[in-house]
Amino acid sequence: MGVRPAVRAVPAYPFTPIQVPIKLDQNENPYDFPAELKAKAAQRMLAQPWNRYPDLHADTLAAKIAEYEDWDADGVVVTPGSNVLIKLLTELAGIEQTVLTVDPTFSVYTLEARMLGARLVQVPLNEDFSVPVDRLKIELQRQRPGVLYITQPHAPTGHVDDLAAVRELLEAAGEWVVVLDEAYYQYSGTDGRELVRQYPNALSLRTFSKAWGLAGLRAGYALAGADLATQLQKLVPAFNVSILMQSALEVALENPGYVQQRVAEAVAERGRVLAALADHPTCQALPSRANFFLLRTPDAEVAYRHLIGHGIVTRRQDHLTGLEGCLRVGIGTPAENDALIGAVRALK
Amino acid sequence: MGVRPAVRAVPAYPFTPIQVPIKLDQNENPYDFPAELKAKAAQRMLAQPWNRYPDLHADTLAAKIAEYEDWDADGVVVTPGSNVLIKLLTELAGIEQTVLTVDPTFSVYTLEARMLGARLVQVPLNEDFSVPVDRLKIELQRQRPGVLYITQPHAPTGHVDDLAAVRELLEAAGEWVVVLDEAYYQYSGTDGRELVRQYPNALSLRTFSKAWGLAGLRAGYALAGADLATQLQKLVPAFNVSILMQSALEVALENPGYVQQRVAEAVAERGRVLAALADHPTCQALPSRANFFLLRTPDAEVAYRHLIGHGIVTRRQDHLTGLEGCLRVGIGTPAENDALIGAVRALK
Repeated sequence: MGVRPAVRAVPAYPFTPIQVPIKLDQNENPYDFPAELKAKAAQRMLAQPWNRYPDLHADTLAAKIAEYEDWDADGVVVTPGSNVLIKLLTELAGIEQTVLTVDPTFSVYTLEARMLGARLVQVPLNEDFSVPVDRLKIELQRQRPGVLYITQPHAPTGHVDDLAAVRELLEAAGEWVVVLDEAYYQYSGTDGRELVRQYPNALSLRTFSKAWGLAGLRAGYALAGADLATQLQKLVPAFNVSILMQSALEVALENPGYVQQRVAEAVAERGRVLAALADHPTCQALPSRANFFLLRTPDAEVAYRHLIGHGIVTRRQDHLTGLEGCLRVGIGTPAENDALIGAVRALK
Repeated sequence: MGVRPAVRAVPAYPFTPIQVPIKLDQNENPYDFPAELKAKAAQRMLAQPWNRYPDLHADTLAAKIAEYEDWDADGVVVTPGSNVLIKLLTELAGIEQTVLTVDPTFSVYTLEARMLGARLVQVPLNEDFSVPVDRLKIELQRQRPGVLYITQPHAPTGHVDDLAAVRELLEAAGEWVVVLDEAYYQYSGTDGRELVRQYPNALSLRTFSKAWGLAGLRAGYALAGADLATQLQKLVPAFNVSILMQSALEVALENPGYVQQRVAEAVAERGRVLAALADHPTCQALPSRANFFLLRTPDAEVAYRHLIGHGIVTRRQDHLTGLEGCLRVGIGTPAENDALIGAVRALK
């Protein structure tokens, strides 16, 4: 058959939009990009020709990201969304090789592995959601090298490991490409750059979709050493980053002040929500260092529908190993969080 | 090695931007998207939240494309550039299977095949650049099914085959996925939709980068039957089409009148340029039905530099089989084309 059986066997990406007032299901920033920056971005877009191809690899934008991240521009790879980078990394090191990650994990790692013909190996998280270092090291030895995905903070648990644990994996990685997915790092105050600098087979994935509040623009990037970035860049379709995205992200990078303030609010609100739910008789709000947390309920279906009834959409995670009864709940605005607290308290 | 040898072995995408006044090297529309439509698009972008993810698969935009193309919306797949679709089609049917195409051909087909571990089989074009139907049919029988790429009009020759030839390939294709890349169909007045409707394994690739004058936005789409589109859609990264792109393309699709006028001018100019160069003593302007043509020169290096000296950049194609001495030259504005004619006439 022309269409590969591995693709036919995979279900479509599981996401159904629900129209309710309070959207806590996609870990978005609850605040829009500041209005004055939107206007600036639009002006910059209008000043450019739309009939000409953009930079082959968004070099100007990559240079601005490099400056912001204190990174070498040769080590920056930009794409329309960091999930594109996960596909490309699976192409780079997974096809006919191995994709190694934990369980539960971000579904894009496992879907791409299955569709692209990688051997997928998953090691269960420890009970406290920490990364199972010893068992991963065994698999790094046992399997044909490929790509290892580590998420810090972890999704969907919000757990953060000591950098020492990640370093131990990097030390054991040999030829493996090790991806440190840092989509939520601003909310945990952690930073893998120093580790990535030290290991030429390591790479950090970052995104404009969360702390930057630009999920609608679809932009992510990788930070890596020059060789790894060069190989990865070959897999990025030419002219992949539109002039619209380049204009908007350049404006964001020139005016990053708003990010810190919003992250600080989200972190404070996360503490407030977790504290407010701490004494719930039947639900358990699990600790998290991201802009979301897991709510363990007696019955995820009942809890999910109850919250929808209160105008709040969350994400069910109860199909995942060890996450029985769990919903993933984003941190919203203070008013949205008040509504959430009230609705969860009303849940028996 | 974690990084797959197939990726290491491939050179980076061969493109170097040259700063000269007249840009005829990327087959772009020489005119920008109309200013009033740019303004409308920007207004629409500003009216939307940028912090929220877009549609999972750009359903609203896909529905507008379906209406414009008189196609079923379930059969439309939109991505940031049609080169993304070529990658995804190679993932769909090429990995560990076969990518079959002609030679010379569009480099993205062959680069993706090499990087993604497909067996790449190329059949030389006939001497008149027509598609080698009989030899392709032999390979369709001989090779493990995968994906066949046919380009109409062909790039980089600008040749168009009778639909009967394409139909003969579709009849022989069995389980193969057959991609009819129609990036330039507006300039040839051809249309593969009726064929694609009749064969569930056939697919048409189209783009906003050429006739629509929106190369900077990076948007392409596939038209196929519902089953093939569903399988392909699984490989499209979730939320792949930004709200910026959606806003701009919706405005374009609501105001498509400008396209026909520009295509008509490009077709008229193509005739004028080819006629003006017909009696050149040493160069041969080859017939074409796209918005570019091949210029066969005694020495491509010399001719390329001569044109750069006249402020005109073209694309060398002399490394390709059967295209010794050839440059690929885009059709520009009438003034740009006048400059081209003058510069080529000055070439001995």
